Amino acid sequence: MFEKFRFLTAGESHGKCLTAIIEGLPAGLEIDVDFINAELKRRQGGYGRGGRMKIENDTVEITSGVRFGKTLGSPLTMVIWNRDFENWQKIMSVNAKDFTDEKSFTAYRPGHADFAGSIKYNREDLRDILERSSARKTAIYVAVGAVAKLLLKHYGIECSSKILQIGSGKNEEEFCREIDLAKEAGDTVGGKFEVIVDNLPVGLGSHVHWDRKLDGRIAQAVMSIPAVKSVSFGDGEDAYKIFGSKFHDEIFLKENGEIYRKTNHSGGVEGGMTNGEPLVVRAVMKPIPTLRKPLNTVDFKQNEQTTAHFERSDTCAVEACAVVAEAMVACTLANEIMLVKPCDYL
Amino acid sequence: MFEKFRFLTAGESHGKCLTAIIEGLPAGLEIDVDFINAELKRRQGGYGRGGRMKIENDTVEITSGVRFGKTLGSPLTMVIWNRDFENWQKIMSVNAKDFTDEKSFTAYRPGHADFAGSIKYNREDLRDILERSSARKTAIYVAVGAVAKLLLKHYGIECSSKILQIGSGKNEEEFCREIDLAKEAGDTVGGKFEVIVDNLPVGLGSHVHWDRKLDGRIAQAVMSIPAVKSVSFGDGEDAYKIFGSKFHDEIFLKENGEIYRKTNHSGGVEGGMTNGEPLVVRAVMKPIPTLRKPLNTVDFKQNEQTTAHFERSDTCAVEACAVVAEAMVACTLANEIMLVKPCDYL
Amino acid sequence: MFEKFRFLTAGESHGKCLTAIIEGLPAGLEIDVDFINAELKRRQGGYGRGGRMKIENDTVEITSGVRFGKTLGSPLTMVIWNRDFENWQKIMSVNAKDFTDEKSFTAYRPGHADFAGSIKYNREDLRDILERSSARKTAIYVAVGAVAKLLLKHYGIECSSKILQIGSGKNEEEFCREIDLAKEAGDTVGGKFEVIVDNLPVGLGSHVHWDRKLDGRIAQAVMSIPAVKSVSFGDGEDAYKIFGSKFHDEIFLKENGEIYRKTNHSGGVEGGMTNGEPLVVRAVMKPIPTLRKPLNTVDFKQNEQTTAHFERSDTCAVEACAVVAEAMVACTLANEIMLVKPCDYL
Amino acid sequence: MFEKFRFLTAGESHGKCLTAIIEGLPAGLEIDVDFINAELKRRQGGYGRGGRMKIENDTVEITSGVRFGKTLGSPLTMVIWNRDFENWQKIMSVNAKDFTDEKSFTAYRPGHADFAGSIKYNREDLRDILERSSARKTAIYVAVGAVAKLLLKHYGIECSSKILQIGSGKNEEEFCREIDLAKEAGDTVGGKFEVIVDNLPVGLGSHVHWDRKLDGRIAQAVMSIPAVKSVSFGDGEDAYKIFGSKFHDEIFLKENGEIYRKTNHSGGVEGGMTNGEPLVVRAVMKPIPTLRKPLNTVDFKQNEQTTAHFERSDTCAVEACAVVAEAMVACTLANEIMLVKPCDYL
Repeated sequence: MFEKFRFLTAGESHGKCLTAIIEGLPAGLEIDVDFINAELKRRQGGYGRGGRMKIENDTVEITSGVRFGKTLGSPLTMVIWNRDFENWQKIMSVNAKDFTDEKSFTAYRPGHADFAGSIKYNREDLRDILERSSARKTAIYVAVGAVAKLLLKHYGIECSSKILQIGSGKNEEEFCREIDLAKEAGDTVGGKFEVIVDNLPVGLGSHVHWDRKLDGRIAQAVMSIPAVKSVSFGDGEDAYKIFGSKFHDEIFLKENGEIYRKTNHSGGVEGGMTNGEPLVVRAVMKPIPTLRKPLNTVDFKQNEQTTAHFERSDTCAVEACAVVAEAMVACTLANEIMLVKPCDYL
Repeated sequence: MFEKFRFLTAGESHGKCLTAIIEGLPAGLEIDVDFINAELKRRQGGYGRGGRMKIENDTVEITSGVRFGKTLGSPLTMVIWNRDFENWQKIMSVNAKDFTDEKSFTAYRPGHADFAGSIKYNREDLRDILERSSARKTAIYVAVGAVAKLLLKHYGIECSSKILQIGSGKNEEEFCREIDLAKEAGDTVGGKFEVIVDNLPVGLGSHVHWDRKLDGRIAQAVMSIPAVKSVSFGDGEDAYKIFGSKFHDEIFLKENGEIYRKTNHSGGVEGGMTNGEPLVVRAVMKPIPTLRKPLNTVDFKQNEQTTAHFERSDTCAVEACAVVAEAMVACTLANEIMLVKPCDYL
Repeated sequence: MFEKFRFLTAGESHGKCLTAIIEGLPAGLEIDVDFINAELKRRQGGYGRGGRMKIENDTVEITSGVRFGKTLGSPLTMVIWNRDFENWQKIMSVNAKDFTDEKSFTAYRPGHADFAGSIKYNREDLRDILERSSARKTAIYVAVGAVAKLLLKHYGIECSSKILQIGSGKNEEEFCREIDLAKEAGDTVGGKFEVIVDNLPVGLGSHVHWDRKLDGRIAQAVMSIPAVKSVSFGDGEDAYKIFGSKFHDEIFLKENGEIYRKTNHSGGVEGGMTNGEPLVVRAVMKPIPTLRKPLNTVDFKQNEQTTAHFERSDTCAVEACAVVAEAMVACTLANEIMLVKPCDYL
Repeated sequence: MFEKFRFLTAGESHGKCLTAIIEGLPAGLEIDVDFINAELKRRQGGYGRGGRMKIENDTVEITSGVRFGKTLGSPLTMVIWNRDFENWQKIMSVNAKDFTDEKSFTAYRPGHADFAGSIKYNREDLRDILERSSARKTAIYVAVGAVAKLLLKHYGIECSSKILQIGSGKNEEEFCREIDLAKEAGDTVGGKFEVIVDNLPVGLGSHVHWDRKLDGRIAQAVMSIPAVKSVSFGDGEDAYKIFGSKFHDEIFLKENGEIYRKTNHSGGVEGGMTNGEPLVVRAVMKPIPTLRKPLNTVDFKQNEQTTAHFERSDTCAVEACAVVAEAMVACTLANEIMLVKPCDYL
């Protein structure tokens, strides 16, 4: 949780809805619902997605904090209703009287929260864990991130993302080939991507205390996305391969007195602060752990070796993951911008 | 800042001392000062260190929170006195009457906080920034981490670290060769290392909300270390290269009913929680940005192109960085362990 | 915001709904929706309430975090729908195209957030402020508090409250008389009440750091209720009138070795911690600032002296306020209990 | 802990020193050490103080965060050395080898943290609790508050305080008489006081979320001072006695268009925000619980009824308490002012 742009999100994958409350917005910010919905649509796209994406077609309903198209400064609530909920209302009922363990899951899916979560929270039906650990919840992150982006746009700041690699593929055509290969094999494939933020002011974050360093905060926000296993800034991933004289971004003076750089190996962060260059955050998404070709695992109820259950799933969701990463970076920056340009109203 | 194991650190590189206050420790924890000092010594070692390390020989003084060798539950204060302070007391004086700008720094050092920090905090002498952004402050992180480790040891949890690569070198001998090469060239070199934590209980962290995910919290803590540019869990850095069936850690059943894994690609974290396997955090440290062979930069006072100032520095500090990373991981885990096994006293 | 029992609330007085997300609950807690609704009913009762209470008849809908009657450990969302929303959807529309300033408020109501809020958030229609500052939002506090109470009940802890004084009235009959007097005069009246919590363990809160003191945390929670202007513990309000020998609660030993007290002037808190005696929190609610007999004020748009607008309102809401105070105390204690008896599951 | 002006304090009553680290200050703030020391002196004064005050004569040493008389933006450390430490170094030693239980305390002092603290932290020597729960620690609060005041002064904001009542005494002469009476009787006496803050901008705090309400935050800060048992705003303590038409502060228009009030019953806070009137916070301090005429209590080691131990103490410390309250209010306001006028530098 941040200091100024705070939010809580809630909702199970097949529950009635996903909900977010954002607290700390300035008043007077124009909320463009179409933009939020367009962001939700971006998350649902990408080559390699499965059937559920067609059902979802997420849109957001705002139930507080906005009047006549502008924020009030009060907490903003967004809801994404589950259009498929009628098929799930029995199995996801909040009422004790609807209890059933007929369809309970008892075989841990490797790579998921199932094992650790069921022990931590003492659950006998793994659905009690997987409904919340599902990547479905990232839809509401994207909605929150879209609001953060609207705030950043007010200051001219723009976020985007780009896929860098999927399997051994390094361009659009190769990405599709890798995904096709994985799909044919009943397998899944991850990828590497980057989030780029342009037009940031110098000095977001701080060097003075570890928990105010911008790179640390962004690393937390991006690493907390399901399936992300690695986060780097600029060429940080390879920074151990070259000497300092090649890595550091030298500083030059234009004739007009302006300062500039010829390189951006540091990814726009020095000393835990933005340095005026584009912010470049790279992340690696692991392959989706739900495979058609099932993985070996254990059923803790039957106490026997078995294979992991397969629910309709995607082969590759790297594009979606990049959109979610944009959102989480935008949330982090929205908080930072309000710490330096505090704006009770716009 | 964490919920239970909170701490603030303070101190300039050439100031009188570094200070930390830790708030939230249980009472009755044995504080082994020799262990803390031994950790400080580890941070000062490693091939490739410069002259300052010989001066420092850091030791800690505890000025609150401990009585007769055990914590009281009250805030614990640690101080590392600067043994070289008498040579710096004029230039680092707290008194207005000692003001001088004779030795002020006005040329930004690339790769440091100088540029962004001086703009953010409106400083005319870069020393006002570099004194705090210096890696010197990590000494007190190590002291705080040592206390965290003492708490973890109480639960049988052990932290260690290992250098994986320096330049193109992949073993001890090659590390030294790379460092020698860099040194001869007046250059610096970074490295890749891993922190390993053994014997963690299942279920630290949580999948239920993004900011409680253990991997996110650790990523923040490690990325906030000066010079760290990349953080991964297990084989996360390469997770995009292989298909899901090869990446995920299958689960097996022993005859005695015990559950085990044959692999640990995930680095001990699934769904934002520890899963009972060793925690493996990998990080990349960039080359130290202070080079004997100076980098191009700008002097903002003279408004001219120049080269960066060189102060006595190290060629390579990857071993030290790994020790600091252990400390930051230990602090994160100490907080988590107290959330699940709350211990007002031990 | 607390460390473990975190929550955000949202919603405008005449908006579509009030929403709360609670994050940090253990799994396995039975959620008795009837109990939550009964608490909401308690808030709507009491002598001296106006017409709106009859429309409201609040009930809660749970949209996440609960399955088959028990918490999942994931964030719990509660919604209280506004049954009267169809009459307000134009004036409270989120859409820019519905904008109208026909019914805008421009005369500050003394005693309300109108003046300061409209300046802070730069609003031209005071409805943008009053919709959020309305006491209506305390309905969702009561719902959150009811969940906190369910957690406390699990540990045998019980919260209640009692009206102590209204105007000069000191018993039920006199309370009604004072309220009738106020009503006849087109005026309003406040009151003094206490919240009592029984069966608390010794040692919630802490003396070791100011922001962990239980009395401080409770004081914040209760003082943040609209209209509360004074908070005391036990006989604290009068503690300056008597000498120490009469104020402090002496400690005695039973023959069976049990420790007991004969008095509880301290209200169950010593050194910022519960001491095993009943917790007694006293608070004063000011008279409701919306009066039928209007107060002098200024219309900032007309730039003229005028009188404050009157919307249908209550004469006295002290009973409701006491119920809200119970809720806020329960939230504070739920957080504390989870810090000492951490319970990922029950 | 606040969002921007964060601080941790540490130190035992008879330990080597008290320490505070403040994190979040802007750079360029002039730190007037004489002012800080003068504030410390104010805390030590007042009629009715005992012998220790003469020994103490506290002064502060700044060991980080300030250079040439101005803040650097980095964490500021202050230390108050215990001038009497040489007499305590054995009994307060941090070293295990100095352990002794010869002088251990085992009789709970009523009104202190002894009972609850020793159970919570499982201590056998009550000194382990009382050393931290002592009012001695408020010296460092005053130092932190003095820094906060320096920041507030930059914006023209001034804090002061005034004793309102001691026992039945309502003026200076009567205060002394009450204190003399208590002293002669071997007893102690508390008091009521107010903190006043002038020249605050409109709109500090917020009505939009309970934990951002300024009155709640101040209530926590003041209630967390040892011995404070009641906190009110303006005439809040008596707000239940009069009708709304008499309590609320009507708003008037000057001919020059300026808005003003004739009364300030609300104490400068409406809707959780400053409203431009002086902030008035009233608090009640209970009588000091250490009495020369000892209270009945229990020795838990001897398991017998006894009387509480008396250490050299004060008869009345209301003036000191008011100074501490000023400090805590100043800290709260310093945080708020930086949220609305964020100032990385001054």
